Amino acid sequence: MKKLTLIVDMDEVMADPITKLRTWYARDFNKQYTDEEIAGKHLADVVPAGHASILYQYLNTPGFFRDLVVMQDAVEVMKCLNEKYDVYVVSAAMEFPNSLKDKYDWLQEHFPFLQWQQICLCGSKHIISADIMIDDHSRNFHAGIHRKILFTSHHNIYEPADERVNNWQEVARLLLK
Amino acid sequence: MKKLTLIVDMDEVMADPITKLRTWYARDFNKQYTDEEIAGKHLADVVPAGHASILYQYLNTPGFFRDLVVMQDAVEVMKCLNEKYDVYVVSAAMEFPNSLKDKYDWLQEHFPFLQWQQICLCGSKHIISADIMIDDHSRNFHAGIHRKILFTSHHNIYEPADERVNNWQEVARLLLK
Repeated sequence: MKKLTLIVDMDEVMADPITKLRTWYARDFNKQYTDEEIAGKHLADVVPAGHASILYQYLNTPGFFRDLVVMQDAVEVMKCLNEKYDVYVVSAAMEFPNSLKDKYDWLQEHFPFLQWQQICLCGSKHIISADIMIDDHSRNFHAGIHRKILFTSHHNIYEPADERVNNWQEVARLLLK
Repeated sequence: MKKLTLIVDMDEVMADPITKLRTWYARDFNKQYTDEEIAGKHLADVVPAGHASILYQYLNTPGFFRDLVVMQDAVEVMKCLNEKYDVYVVSAAMEFPNSLKDKYDWLQEHFPFLQWQQICLCGSKHIISADIMIDDHSRNFHAGIHRKILFTSHHNIYEPADERVNNWQEVARLLLK
């Protein structure tokens, strides 16, 4: 039987850029944002006016994405998903062109069982179709995605969702049973 | 009215890597392949056994894709297509991870009217859906592509095609009338 297509997002799903963003911001501006302060919000909307461009500079710094922490249990669950589904990692990375090679190298290091054919670094995800998508941005759940699974991140905690997972163990319970 | 989605391939459609590949090969092995010698074939199948990996090394050399020649009339026609269609440039670049930033920079230089949201560097194109696709590889014309336009390249000249264009003027005649 043909495997279902499963699209998995990188940032805030497989990798954690938010902890590093907050750490760099605290280093430069002596202000460490708490989980409570960014609940339901994007970091760019929380920092003082004019500082959103600083966050952009962090994200486009060569190397920023290269050593991000892997989300807990992501490797083990992805390994199993990769057996059962036709898995693709799709990241809207094009806004940060200096991240492209870093993201590829990061995947090679932590998810070596994924082939280059399974990686897609795009701008908009609106040309991407799949049976299932796991993403922290509901804006990526367009009509071409059949089953939409919202991965909880600080900015989406108050959003409604068809299906929601809070961690990779919950992904496993949903998709590997 | 919602614009139709148009996916355009880069290599051998917008950019010419084949001339450069043949030039580098001639530089290193003193053999310049003619159009006749590569007609209906992939360069990797024409070079002596064991030399396909040399072509791969050329393609993955940082900078290889950065200064490729733009295909004749591609800029002018793409500018007009970009007004009429929802255009995305989709390149199966992930096989050559050192090409990623070069391809982005090349597009910025020659097609500055394209936004980062319109660029997608992927592995397989089988998760990409569109109303229209222009590509030199018919293997990319899967069920999610409604109208399939084969752009003539040396390797596909003997292939059947739903629709075929031989140059960008023919693209204009087909899609801008």
